[in-house]
Formats: sequence, structure tokens, C-alpha cells
Amino acid sequence: MTVPASTGVPILRLGDVLVTGLLNELDDKTAVAFADELTERISSDGARGVLIDISRLEIIDSYVARMLMELTTMSRLLGARVIVAGMQPPVAITLVELGLQLTGVETALNAEQGLTALGWHRSPQAPEGVLRDAHR
Amino acid sequence: MTVPASTGVPILRLGDVLVTGLLNELDDKTAVAFADELTERISSDGARGVLIDISRLEIIDSYVARMLMELTTMSRLLGARVIVAGMQPPVAITLVELGLQLTGVETALNAEQGLTALGWHRSPQAPEGVLRDAHR
Repeated sequence: MTVPASTGVPILRLGDVLVTGLLNELDDKTAVAFADELTERISSDGARGVLIDISRLEIIDSYVARMLMELTTMSRLLGARVIVAGMQPPVAITLVELGLQLTGVETALNAEQGLTALGWHRSPQAPEGVLRDAHR
Repeated sequence: MTVPASTGVPILRLGDVLVTGLLNELDDKTAVAFADELTERISSDGARGVLIDISRLEIIDSYVARMLMELTTMSRLLGARVIVAGMQPPVAITLVELGLQLTGVETALNAEQGLTALGWHRSPQAPEGVLRDAHR
């Protein structure tokens, strides 16, 4: 990995989709480091889609909201589509009260729906043969 | 959320699959908190599968290796299948040198293959209609 884990939040690569999440109590500095790391990873991994789960985020301020909007714009410029998933109702209420409508940010009800929108879906049966099982 | 974010690592729920990752420099206390939180989440979310991405883990010790084995056993008792994905070659070498073969732990080359094994797959085209787009 070329990018240090500055935010302490893992960014998982699922094919051409990056999956990550925000924790509660996100301070401004961590928010900036998160945006920087994610844009770096979009570029280095050649990601076409990004899923950001914010279901753990219980409060949001205008700084973090703006970070999400800027991150979406930057990602789009890099060719990746960002979906913000799992927003809690109090966060949505706060955003409206702040007058921040997250213009341009795609949202999904939860991470599952977000990942589906990014082109993954649940198969009826798990395929065989892709595992290396320590049993064998 | 009933479980506090004790480890600072988000656990994403993708339908009946939980997805999480370990960061490098995992100390013993965090490893235990991670295992506790994950088993709680398996139970509360009714998860059938768990994907643990360890691609960021550059070194492993016997404590963390045992945590992964115990976590796998506990998860199986709860009815969930655990896949550890993205192990780096030096970590595999260390495990063999330590005589820890992670018996019972299913592994996958990367998070993408792990998630595929847990029943998600990449669709050729992203479906429409699951998004709420702030543009509209």
C-alpha cells in the first residue's frame, strides 16, 4: 500500500468498487485525510464506483457535509461514481436545517442497496471453487 | 447501534453478509474488542456470512492469529461463515513459521473473491431504480 492508513478506516476493494465507511465523531482533520486517501485510492486502484457507508454517523456538521460533496465531485472527475449509504434520519434532518442538500451526491438507503446500485448483487447460491480452505 | 465503535473499524452490513477489515498495527486489546464487536453484530444482524479483509495487515503475531481462529469458530457456532481475505505473503510466511495454519479458517485471495464466495457477484450492468439521487 502506498497510502498510509491516516484515517484508521479501511478502504476495501471489491473489483472496481471501493467500499468504506465513516465512524461517528468524525473530526475535521480526519475528514480531510479520509477524502485525500479515498481519492488517492480511486486513482491507484482504478475504481469505477465508491460506496461510503455513513450509518454509524449520528451527527453531521457543515464541514463534513461539504467534504462529502467535494469528494463526490473529485471522484466524478476521476471517473468514479460515489454512493453515500445508510444516512440516519437525524443526519438528514440536520442537513436540511443547515440548508445543505448534498447536491450531486447519490444516496442509498443502506450499504446493500448502494452496492447493488454499483453493480454487485446477491446471488441465489454461492459458487464453489474460489476458496482456499485451510481445512483441506 | 447497540454496540459501541470500540475498535474504530466499521462493520458494514450487506444483506446477510458483514464486511469489515483489519488495519495494520493491531494490538491485542483492539483484537479482542474487534472479535467481541463482530460476534455481537453477527448475532444482532442475523448475519450468515462475514468477510474480514486483512490486506492492510503487514505483520501478524500468534495472538491475532488465534483471535482469527477463535472468531471463526464462534461465528460458525452462531451460524455464520467467515472468510479471511487478502492475506499478504509475509503474513502467510509468518503464520507457517509460527506453526499456526489457521485451521478451520477459510481464506480468499482478495475481498472481491471473498465476497463472491459469500454469495455476491458483480453484475454486468448496474440496475436502475434503487437510488435516491440528490440531483432530481
